[in-house]
Amino acid sequence: MGPGPSDTHPHVLAALGAPTVGHLDPFFLQVMSETQVMLRQVFRTQNELTLAVSGTGTAGMETSLVNLIETGDKVIVCVKGVFGGRMADMAKRMGADVTVLERPFGEVFSSAEVAEAVKRVQPKVVAIVHAETSTGALQPLEEISKIVHDAGALLVVDAVTSLGGVPVEVDAWGLDAVYSGTQKCLSCPPGLSPVTFGPRAVAALDKRKTKVSSWYFDLSLVRNYWGQDRAYHHTAPINMNYALHEGLRLLLEEGLEARHARHLRNHIALKAGLQAMGLKYAVAADCQLPQLNAVLIPAGVDDMKVRRQLLTEFGIEIGGGLGPMKGKTWRIGLMGETAYPRNVLLLLGALERCLTANGVACPPGAGVAAANAKLA
Amino acid sequence: MGPGPSDTHPHVLAALGAPTVGHLDPFFLQVMSETQVMLRQVFRTQNELTLAVSGTGTAGMETSLVNLIETGDKVIVCVKGVFGGRMADMAKRMGADVTVLERPFGEVFSSAEVAEAVKRVQPKVVAIVHAETSTGALQPLEEISKIVHDAGALLVVDAVTSLGGVPVEVDAWGLDAVYSGTQKCLSCPPGLSPVTFGPRAVAALDKRKTKVSSWYFDLSLVRNYWGQDRAYHHTAPINMNYALHEGLRLLLEEGLEARHARHLRNHIALKAGLQAMGLKYAVAADCQLPQLNAVLIPAGVDDMKVRRQLLTEFGIEIGGGLGPMKGKTWRIGLMGETAYPRNVLLLLGALERCLTANGVACPPGAGVAAANAKLA
Repeated sequence: MGPGPSDTHPHVLAALGAPTVGHLDPFFLQVMSETQVMLRQVFRTQNELTLAVSGTGTAGMETSLVNLIETGDKVIVCVKGVFGGRMADMAKRMGADVTVLERPFGEVFSSAEVAEAVKRVQPKVVAIVHAETSTGALQPLEEISKIVHDAGALLVVDAVTSLGGVPVEVDAWGLDAVYSGTQKCLSCPPGLSPVTFGPRAVAALDKRKTKVSSWYFDLSLVRNYWGQDRAYHHTAPINMNYALHEGLRLLLEEGLEARHARHLRNHIALKAGLQAMGLKYAVAADCQLPQLNAVLIPAGVDDMKVRRQLLTEFGIEIGGGLGPMKGKTWRIGLMGETAYPRNVLLLLGALERCLTANGVACPPGAGVAAANAKLA
Repeated sequence: MGPGPSDTHPHVLAALGAPTVGHLDPFFLQVMSETQVMLRQVFRTQNELTLAVSGTGTAGMETSLVNLIETGDKVIVCVKGVFGGRMADMAKRMGADVTVLERPFGEVFSSAEVAEAVKRVQPKVVAIVHAETSTGALQPLEEISKIVHDAGALLVVDAVTSLGGVPVEVDAWGLDAVYSGTQKCLSCPPGLSPVTFGPRAVAALDKRKTKVSSWYFDLSLVRNYWGQDRAYHHTAPINMNYALHEGLRLLLEEGLEARHARHLRNHIALKAGLQAMGLKYAVAADCQLPQLNAVLIPAGVDDMKVRRQLLTEFGIEIGGGLGPMKGKTWRIGLMGETAYPRNVLLLLGALERCLTANGVACPPGAGVAAANAKLA
């Protein structure tokens, strides 16, 4: 119940342990093709260039930026948490002329401030995080996407924690390059990063004057392996792709909207429970992520002591704060297979025990009662 | 029985399917520490900076080069196959001033020609492939390492196909940066790349004037996660690390020397069998890799037709040629769990059937008989 990895479904674990075949085996090529079809459904896109990068979510971040950025390109990065900051660091390493827009951790950007910056900077690329895993804040994207396109720029979106948990409408919102991770709301182990590039992003890739600075992440090469040529690029992580295939199958069997609704339902119950126990959310009510609940650690409570007790006594992992939130927040994940009532109730019960043991006055049973009232 | 992925041991598959825990879970941190201890044993090194990069072998190649190269650095890349060519392409993308030494595919470099180039170019880095997966040739490294160090340069070695199959003596030979892959002689699924950096390479990393151009592969950050700080960098591929841990445990249980001997024994049997069937090796006898047997496709035989028949009728994958060897060679792997007599005999029997079906006159039973004579 941390910020990911989430629990892995037993069927996904079983798929992971299937015998390894070659990366050009007809069976594996079929797995790849089916994975692409399912990824397009989950990303809600027709983008042909939709595939799983052979690395974790950060590899998807680097893929999305490095394929679109050439030395000297103007890039705006919207930073409101650790992962926006990571994008800015990466873009600078790629030689971009980076303008950083900042909001305090836990807040989100208004369309107006992005519009002002886009007008001023005239960037080639604007990069923003949809669901900030470090703060638990959900960034609305639809208006920002329109602003960015009206200025002729490309929008790169981090959907690591959002995909599968809340709607990510790649085509309807016109997102140009979007990356995610397998270990959040897709409930697969970490190790792959689903990425999709739309027509404008592909055109920018095709128009590059210089080679992509990373060979491993160069989509102009990778797409020949995932495309019809099936030209060898690198040896794909075979078993991890089995896992993603099964994870996507389970998601689509449940239905994308049903999964979003399940995340929301359990979030509402958890939130009612946490609030009944006196805990406060670190993010304003109108931009809270259902799948990642960041709450303020009560004054005087030892962060590590509570988390260690939760882990050793109850087998529950929750996350600590990152960056300036370190020691100030807990991040409670309800992602994919983790987002079920049994986890909500267990966490609330266990947290009551650990907080009480650490001198916090919790009304006995109030958390579970409030959650159950919402689940009813 | 292709050039990798090799067969995965059932225990490794079982480890892969164990429940996913968090990347900062005490259990996982122990898995990481034990993996590092075992990797050092397999690499035959004391190097502290020894870890598994979260990507495939090519990710290890990019990690090794990108951490040591800054724009304008002089780099010599020894190219005698596809993977040397890939190193040269990468180094150029990193802004290096690259000098390419070339040998025809299937040959290896003499110390003298490397010495001449090092003297002429005065490079910061020399990069070379130990076991060329595209040709099946084994490159001696000990003398070259001495030449490179005498000139004050660093030696980067591709040990993707060599590690676990033939000796890779990182400390005794003084190799500075070495990378491998999990899916060859370590017999794990693809998805991780063991990398080790020696003291000279670490010093070069510490003395950089510019940030590493890749954030994902920046060892100055990654080492804080694999080191004592356990500082979060990216979410490690948890289950893949379980698999590598188990694969290394099995390797060390068998013993490194015993595993090398097993590869050699099965290679000798396979080679006797292939030669008795009239097939010729593509590489001179003194530099043939036991774990990757590249043979010339007999004149008039349809490459794809034979490989398809081997796969569909017998469930055996062998590899085709890469680059200029495409359509000219087959690459038969005997790596890790694949390097057992039962596979040698099955392949010889099946290949006899497929060659005969394609009009090649094979002396009936000669391949299996010759192999059995060597196995006796």
